Amino acid sequence: MKILSRQQIERLLSVPGMLKAIEEGFIAYSRGETVIPPVASLHFEHPPGDCHIKYGYAKKGKYYVVKIASGFYDNPKQGFPSGNGLMLLFDKENGIPLCLLQDEGYLTDMRTAAAGCIAAKYLAPKNVSCVGIIGTGAQALYQLKLLSFATSCRKALVWGRDASKAKTLISHSDLSEWSCEIATSIDQLAAECNLIVTTTASSHPLLWAHQIRPGTHITAMGADDVGKQELDPKIFAKAHKVIVDSRSQCALFGDSSHAVKASLIREEQLIELGDAIRDSKLRRTGESEITLADLTGVAVQDLQIAATVFEST
Amino acid sequence: MKILSRQQIERLLSVPGMLKAIEEGFIAYSRGETVIPPVASLHFEHPPGDCHIKYGYAKKGKYYVVKIASGFYDNPKQGFPSGNGLMLLFDKENGIPLCLLQDEGYLTDMRTAAAGCIAAKYLAPKNVSCVGIIGTGAQALYQLKLLSFATSCRKALVWGRDASKAKTLISHSDLSEWSCEIATSIDQLAAECNLIVTTTASSHPLLWAHQIRPGTHITAMGADDVGKQELDPKIFAKAHKVIVDSRSQCALFGDSSHAVKASLIREEQLIELGDAIRDSKLRRTGESEITLADLTGVAVQDLQIAATVFEST
Repeated sequence: MKILSRQQIERLLSVPGMLKAIEEGFIAYSRGETVIPPVASLHFEHPPGDCHIKYGYAKKGKYYVVKIASGFYDNPKQGFPSGNGLMLLFDKENGIPLCLLQDEGYLTDMRTAAAGCIAAKYLAPKNVSCVGIIGTGAQALYQLKLLSFATSCRKALVWGRDASKAKTLISHSDLSEWSCEIATSIDQLAAECNLIVTTTASSHPLLWAHQIRPGTHITAMGADDVGKQELDPKIFAKAHKVIVDSRSQCALFGDSSHAVKASLIREEQLIELGDAIRDSKLRRTGESEITLADLTGVAVQDLQIAATVFEST
Repeated sequence: MKILSRQQIERLLSVPGMLKAIEEGFIAYSRGETVIPPVASLHFEHPPGDCHIKYGYAKKGKYYVVKIASGFYDNPKQGFPSGNGLMLLFDKENGIPLCLLQDEGYLTDMRTAAAGCIAAKYLAPKNVSCVGIIGTGAQALYQLKLLSFATSCRKALVWGRDASKAKTLISHSDLSEWSCEIATSIDQLAAECNLIVTTTASSHPLLWAHQIRPGTHITAMGADDVGKQELDPKIFAKAHKVIVDSRSQCALFGDSSHAVKASLIREEQLIELGDAIRDSKLRRTGESEITLADLTGVAVQDLQIAATVFEST
């Protein structure tokens, strides 16, 4: 079994290769060509934390993946990150473990940002005037970094509850090709940006239907578990196309779930990203349309990114 | 993270230490002091195989474990074993991965045999005249090896469908301290042995109620999934004490499940091994009693054996 450290993985990972593999993964997923059981999880009380095990395979693929990711929220008090994780890739022909990827959560961050990039590539308007990022965590940085693979726009507005974190983000050395400013309000951000990404741990709407201008694309990344919400459910009724990574999962706990519950959209109206990649009719059909992508994270992304890294060793 | 190979694990594993840890694990499990969610699994069609993920922790313990074990039944045609597996031990305080145990299934074999040894230690009659093993696979060997920690008897009778496999087993170099013979029939084995272990992949009863003499202890190891069965369900009605590693799991798919379905025993009558270890009243109370242990395998065994190995590094 190959054993790769985070440093090795960072060196090995080709972003274009990963984006291609994850697009193919979404297509296979939406075609029913993958086997992705429900997430297995452990919850801890003292100290508080959780561990999620995501696993699965593509029927025509060579591997199966098991990802074990944890979040322990008191870790930063001890001086290390709350999140951690690793992936294991196995040979689907015989069960032999092929690769341990000790990525410490890096690959989860990257595959999550990759989904945002793919959503923007297929759904954003042709001319992105300014990218708006709501949220200032690690994923905000990864989203901006990968969006440079989806748009030629390099202007961004960032909004966060904590102005000092917003300042740290916009001055990050990885964003040197971006011209980033801090938005004074979400109102301002929505008025100036036609590609908006929400990536927070919010449990209530931050972005409202009346703020959304025609021609805007919104990607909501944050609602990855029950109890989370970033969007006014009315945006789902206002949007011309609503794209989801996984119809069943988004209807269960994504931002979509709140809109489905409020009867603002029916589960059948949710279009899976894999289908939208294959079929342009399922995407934006005019520059004034509002499009929305609700992304909750699917193990097929883990499978594809792990395979990409392994195959480049 | 420490990374241990099978060879290192074999050198590090102390059998007495493991037996003590697994006894403590069973006690914690039966006291409700562990968190062991249902097994997660993947099934494969071409070629046929499966992957089981067992995971959990003891509330008062330091670790959580994730075990990934596979079985690909065409592997032997390619010249390697059908089973494979590894375990990962994490720090329950912060989610940091502590140890990868690349045991290739060895620790599963050992923890399974350990449960048989513990059952015999607490349930077998004082004077074991002869140990009877029904089955000739790898687990038959491990059971005999570990039973030398539970009884001073070194006489064994082995029965298997395949006489050549029985011959290979009894002449195995690891059994040099045992005097082993092949039984001509299960009738003969049951007549001569008062400690009987069934360890086969049978889907129908091999051992019948009328064959069981007073004072016998039986451990059934084989029925670890739906559709498997080794014992005549009437043995459950005949036995004075029926011990199970996990009441809920045994009632679901252990040999017990067939007896519960046939109303030969009620689920509430099944005594958990962890309770029997703590309370001698729940064990054999006379030398003529018939006792029965139905063992299906619980992740607490994986947790305890992985911790034992890790702590001896």
